[in-house]
Amino acid sequence: MNNRTLIVELKAVVGKEATVAGFVDVRRDHGKLVFLDIRDRSGKVQCVVTPDKKEAHAAASALRPEWVVSIIGKVNKRPEKMVNKDEQNGAIEVEVLCIQVLAKAKELPFDLGSEVHIDTHLDNLPFTLRAPKYQAIFKIQAHTARAFRDFFTNEGFTEFEAPKLIGDDAEGGANSFDVSYFKHTAHLAQSPQLYKQIMVGVFECVFAVGNVYRAEKHSTTRHLNEYTSLDIEFGFIKDHTDVMAMENKFLLYLEKELRVHCANEFAFLGAEIPKVPQDILAMKLTDALALIKKETGADKTGAMDLEPEDERWLCEYAKKNHDSDFIFVTHFPTAKRPFYTYRDEANPTYTKGFDLLFRGVEITTGAQRIHNYDALIASLQEKGLDPEKFAFYLQAFKYGLPPHGGFGMGLERLTQKLCGLANVKEATLFPRDLNRIDTLLSK
Amino acid sequence: MNNRTLIVELKAVVGKEATVAGFVDVRRDHGKLVFLDIRDRSGKVQCVVTPDKKEAHAAASALRPEWVVSIIGKVNKRPEKMVNKDEQNGAIEVEVLCIQVLAKAKELPFDLGSEVHIDTHLDNLPFTLRAPKYQAIFKIQAHTARAFRDFFTNEGFTEFEAPKLIGDDAEGGANSFDVSYFKHTAHLAQSPQLYKQIMVGVFECVFAVGNVYRAEKHSTTRHLNEYTSLDIEFGFIKDHTDVMAMENKFLLYLEKELRVHCANEFAFLGAEIPKVPQDILAMKLTDALALIKKETGADKTGAMDLEPEDERWLCEYAKKNHDSDFIFVTHFPTAKRPFYTYRDEANPTYTKGFDLLFRGVEITTGAQRIHNYDALIASLQEKGLDPEKFAFYLQAFKYGLPPHGGFGMGLERLTQKLCGLANVKEATLFPRDLNRIDTLLSK
Repeated sequence: MNNRTLIVELKAVVGKEATVAGFVDVRRDHGKLVFLDIRDRSGKVQCVVTPDKKEAHAAASALRPEWVVSIIGKVNKRPEKMVNKDEQNGAIEVEVLCIQVLAKAKELPFDLGSEVHIDTHLDNLPFTLRAPKYQAIFKIQAHTARAFRDFFTNEGFTEFEAPKLIGDDAEGGANSFDVSYFKHTAHLAQSPQLYKQIMVGVFECVFAVGNVYRAEKHSTTRHLNEYTSLDIEFGFIKDHTDVMAMENKFLLYLEKELRVHCANEFAFLGAEIPKVPQDILAMKLTDALALIKKETGADKTGAMDLEPEDERWLCEYAKKNHDSDFIFVTHFPTAKRPFYTYRDEANPTYTKGFDLLFRGVEITTGAQRIHNYDALIASLQEKGLDPEKFAFYLQAFKYGLPPHGGFGMGLERLTQKLCGLANVKEATLFPRDLNRIDTLLSK
Repeated sequence: MNNRTLIVELKAVVGKEATVAGFVDVRRDHGKLVFLDIRDRSGKVQCVVTPDKKEAHAAASALRPEWVVSIIGKVNKRPEKMVNKDEQNGAIEVEVLCIQVLAKAKELPFDLGSEVHIDTHLDNLPFTLRAPKYQAIFKIQAHTARAFRDFFTNEGFTEFEAPKLIGDDAEGGANSFDVSYFKHTAHLAQSPQLYKQIMVGVFECVFAVGNVYRAEKHSTTRHLNEYTSLDIEFGFIKDHTDVMAMENKFLLYLEKELRVHCANEFAFLGAEIPKVPQDILAMKLTDALALIKKETGADKTGAMDLEPEDERWLCEYAKKNHDSDFIFVTHFPTAKRPFYTYRDEANPTYTKGFDLLFRGVEITTGAQRIHNYDALIASLQEKGLDPEKFAFYLQAFKYGLPPHGGFGMGLERLTQKLCGLANVKEATLFPRDLNRIDTLLSK
């Protein structure tokens, strides 16, 4: 619509005629006067229909929530006593001259924005996603993904599209989905890991944003079977601390971008944009476990990994003692990390791998990787994997690859923690789990 | 590596010491002098090792192509008669003081950049993708995807991640891959179409970049079973011509971006950046077929679609008569277009749908879509589809959706035609086809 004015721009045309197009958010019928709150992608505005505009008044009386309309009206300042300073357009209103209905809506299942059970929300996503809460969440998500791309592009990284359809479950886990691929069985990628390492040989510094798949038989507030992974990998690093420093720098950039573009959305959600430290606290796993023992008495020293309660405790510790929502934990045991993880020369039982914890959960796994061809083959064999099956990938190392490392970060989980949501499914547009792909699988 | 200087920046430090890190591209042993061409992500530079630097000279003699090294050296101007004006760093060279080997490489299967059969190329992608030709192709591809995102973000569109794992083959084709999803069968999405329409209800203007899947049993120079789709959808349009105008505007932006960022890559490939017209020629299908008959005698009037030879002829026509690499063809028959395509009010046998042809092939399919709930249900039924199966999607329409439209464009095919490549697989990082996922499926 060529002559449409976005609602956010109406303030600039007070005293003039304008065409507003959007959804009927609320209609309030005061008999003679009909008030319409119209919503478009830029905001909301109140429109007033007076009885003397006969056609418009009749049209307005028929309108219901979610009907789509185009309205020609005059943009007026509100009378002083009607001004609402808490609203985006609380100082103006549109005096309606003409209403055109672009689409009708059937009766709504419940009011948009109602607090409903998560299953009701998921059953009605094409409707419920229109609520301001979800608009805010997914605007924050879009800005987060954009900040990720902009930051790494500016750092000289090249984006690539990693394949999701893969020939073998190359990372060795049982958690892959099978795909009927003509006469063969293919799999859905659990991460772009092997491809981003290959791409270090091509562009040195790469990133990828895309879906990954985990066939985990859980339906919890933490699990998704399809999610979006933000991935980077880059060459010519000193060790894993270069990767952690790069992630720290990205998070500082993300904080700045969210403050510029999403302050209103965070305020609406009652969530806080995290203050990212210049140097995020980092702690070896063994030191973290020793600290937990010292402070809480719970003896987990010797544990191979952190349990959810440990992640929560460490985050609370970092918040209390370092005013930080973030904490790195490093040097996880070689036995618990994938075959491509670089071992600490000082103690090869441990890796140069790390997790980043944020507000109680792990949001990133990263590491320096093995770049030496022979060492990588030995590592595959130690893990009981067949190097033959990895022959394609191994070419990258056979023909020379620099020391490199990277990390992966789940976009939905990051969004969940940024927005302070209880369930990761609320931070996922169309979540897939054990029981549901859009609709429930078993009815 | 903190003190590394990228090769592109060496010109700025002539007379000083610098650390260069990269791959050995070529080693030329002249007995006393050893010349090394070192390649990093920013370019190439010649390094000279003199016999008086004993350790460096011994190290240099052992180097082979694709070994990864870090070199400390002094950046010098070349003697006047040694200057090569055709090279990026043809006026400088690095006088090597010290060489550190970061990774060795085994003997190469063939020289990097050799002309090899497409199957040999695909068998050795982790190696062959390092060749300047493929670096150029995928740099152009990355800039194309980035231009797409930047343009639509600036136009007020919001990016979202469309799910790829879907419950039913909602577009009704036989070309979908089956996925074992716990006790159920799911499918891989053939496009984000239904989700982007749902998202018009949320953000009005949306775009998505992601993999889509076609289970086509072909292995040709045109087919891919997994490709990257650039998709947009937006509301409050007048009709399909608004969508075409938006695509035209994007292509103008893309041309500008490619000229700024990829001129060297196009020159290297011997390919031409297309000159995008301000108003791309548009022609109804029936008019296009009538023109073909008039000009060539081939009577295809009454055909329901264009054949590859027609696409080529129309592109040649547009080039010759309008100096344009692009031509829109509109109003394809309703019978040949998906159920959600808007019909032309003047003649409902035809749709308000279009294709964009570029250098001989269709690169985009787009349309205005049906936004009226009852009309959409009728259209599903006419196509023999069960509205019950589409109940989730239909909620978007049941609860009011504005007039809207959009298009989808295959990133790899666009890259292929931009770069003038004979096979779309050369414009795909890790192509999947009937016979191959990285390695051949049947050996």
